[in-house]
Amino acid sequence: MSGHFITFEGNDGAGKTTVLNQVVDRLQPQLWDQLVVTREPGGDPIAEKIRNLIVDEQNEAMDARTEALLFAAARRQHLEQKVLPALAQERVVLCDRYVDSSVAYQGAGRQLGEQKVLELNQFATNGVLPELTIYFAVPVAVGLERIEHRDEHSTNRLDREQRDFYVRVHDAYERLAQAHPERIVRVDATQSVTTVTNQVLAIIMQHLK
Amino acid sequence: MSGHFITFEGNDGAGKTTVLNQVVDRLQPQLWDQLVVTREPGGDPIAEKIRNLIVDEQNEAMDARTEALLFAAARRQHLEQKVLPALAQERVVLCDRYVDSSVAYQGAGRQLGEQKVLELNQFATNGVLPELTIYFAVPVAVGLERIEHRDEHSTNRLDREQRDFYVRVHDAYERLAQAHPERIVRVDATQSVTTVTNQVLAIIMQHLK
Repeated sequence: MSGHFITFEGNDGAGKTTVLNQVVDRLQPQLWDQLVVTREPGGDPIAEKIRNLIVDEQNEAMDARTEALLFAAARRQHLEQKVLPALAQERVVLCDRYVDSSVAYQGAGRQLGEQKVLELNQFATNGVLPELTIYFAVPVAVGLERIEHRDEHSTNRLDREQRDFYVRVHDAYERLAQAHPERIVRVDATQSVTTVTNQVLAIIMQHLK
Repeated sequence: MSGHFITFEGNDGAGKTTVLNQVVDRLQPQLWDQLVVTREPGGDPIAEKIRNLIVDEQNEAMDARTEALLFAAARRQHLEQKVLPALAQERVVLCDRYVDSSVAYQGAGRQLGEQKVLELNQFATNGVLPELTIYFAVPVAVGLERIEHRDEHSTNRLDREQRDFYVRVHDAYERLAQAHPERIVRVDATQSVTTVTNQVLAIIMQHLK
């Protein structure tokens, strides 16, 4: 595997998708078609179908373990069909969410156990980890306030969690960042979008050197 | 958990579904609405949607690990929504396929590793195993010949495997039966449907006593 696999992680409302778009605008002139920007769950026709099952409001009876398994299934398909081929072509893959999201959201948020969800994802990814993960850290209250200013009429099954859920997710991300300093870089995402974008760009450029 | 959880397992073409129907006809007069007959993957609205993803011919690009994860997701949902509630009501649940199918088909057939697929399914089932498993044993050649006499125009993505795939599945079932004699009863399914049905009925009645 050559190429570079870089993931963006953080609580809902941390601003990672906004910053990712800005980062792409700034990297594009240098990297051109070497850059692949993608997101989870989705990013492949079968993975998108799995994503639809996960987010469909009609599927409110979905069990937490079912959800974790579907995220892992979508992740596998996306990795195999999109990420690994891009890495084989020596591209730079920027991916919005990956295994850390499942550890934080399903492992801690849904209380299935961080270690168990990690093991499930080791099966799904066959051990493929990103070289670099940018963790967008914001206090739970800040993330929640930003979410509230989004579309009020979300029809996404996942957008209905309570504050204690997000506290567990946040704390799990902090633990992951502490446990894996060689891979995860923590960025203070309470700063302005421009400041965060500049910091993330610097981290990525340093890594690609 | 009270009730009784009994699974039917075996290679394609072993005749288990035919015998299951006969067994149900014979058990119905004694057990009435105590009997719950179901199958995997499916048996619940969300699990049926996952089943559709798995079998859809359009999804030919589905990776083997994605498939294993989707089977496990459908299993979890079916277990949680259908099997466990029925067992809590002290019912007798007869289920066509369960964890052993994934160990044999995805673990051995698709060569993902029997132990790894078992561990994945321990996450999915949270360790819930059937009390009794009827294993319908037929030589691979017999199973394949019976499959050939089915509808020629199957549009199921799974019905396209080669002989060596079914040999691996068969051998894995034999290993499972040897490793778990306390749970798995091996029935010679080359016998007539009537003979196999009588044997299976006797095994189940003995178990329910």
